[in-house]
Amino acid sequence: MEIRQATAADLDAMWDIFQSVIAAGDAMPFSDDFDRETFRSHWFGVQPSWVAVAGSDVLGMYKLGANYPGLGDHVASATYVVHPAAQGRGIGRSLVQHSLARAQSEGFLAMQFNYVVSSNAPAVELYKKLGFAIVGTLPKAFRHKRLGLVDAYVMYRFL
Amino acid sequence: MEIRQATAADLDAMWDIFQSVIAAGDAMPFSDDFDRETFRSHWFGVQPSWVAVAGSDVLGMYKLGANYPGLGDHVASATYVVHPAAQGRGIGRSLVQHSLARAQSEGFLAMQFNYVVSSNAPAVELYKKLGFAIVGTLPKAFRHKRLGLVDAYVMYRFL
Repeated sequence: MEIRQATAADLDAMWDIFQSVIAAGDAMPFSDDFDRETFRSHWFGVQPSWVAVAGSDVLGMYKLGANYPGLGDHVASATYVVHPAAQGRGIGRSLVQHSLARAQSEGFLAMQFNYVVSSNAPAVELYKKLGFAIVGTLPKAFRHKRLGLVDAYVMYRFL
Repeated sequence: MEIRQATAADLDAMWDIFQSVIAAGDAMPFSDDFDRETFRSHWFGVQPSWVAVAGSDVLGMYKLGANYPGLGDHVASATYVVHPAAQGRGIGRSLVQHSLARAQSEGFLAMQFNYVVSSNAPAVELYKKLGFAIVGTLPKAFRHKRLGLVDAYVMYRFL
């Protein structure tokens, strides 16, 4: 498995992964009506996206950028998505570690996740292991497809 | 003083207010290179903006919308800006109260402020008085023009 910059040729595979993750309705706010063009503009914008690949298979991806412009642009944020069939194999961990190194090399002072679904235990645990603390709790901020209204966390670490 | 929907004729006055507030570098992340066209697209988008006016003078403004799409779109967020020369006269309070009523009538369940600069005491105190709690602290997330790195708060209340 290697992590490399995404290219336009990866778009189909990335869109498939994204769609299967949002279909579960348990980790990201985007609902089923999220369209491919919006996805493309989010993931192929100013900043490059990164993909975890094994041979020709895309297994996961992330994107990284400033959480705020101007006087807040020393804090990064990132979004990670791992193919449901490839979860539990350490791909998420590799993506987060890769993004932390990138953020550090780009001069960011901290990394913030704005909206970690509290019931997404594997993600919360992974982020904690990698040095993130829960610095905020947003009560009932996420409408989980199975569980109904659940809290979301804001997680943060310095780099 | 009344609060009404902003129209294209208000754009010049709103842009002036916005520029004087971001010039201080103590409340909003946007820096001096923020351009008028981006401002226009943020404040005259899908959702209407609202202005506090006294006669023909625009004294302040706010915009309101969902903080996240899809499974997070039951939580609103808002941004308020009061003309520096008109601060301390209750205009901010009126704008927040107006936005809370709007958010409630639009069916939102809660309101979240993502990035309240901790040293902006008048804003923090006003939000507390109007029922918001600090639910998160983002360490050193804002580069204050005079104070250097200061915390930002996430504030939240149900409607």
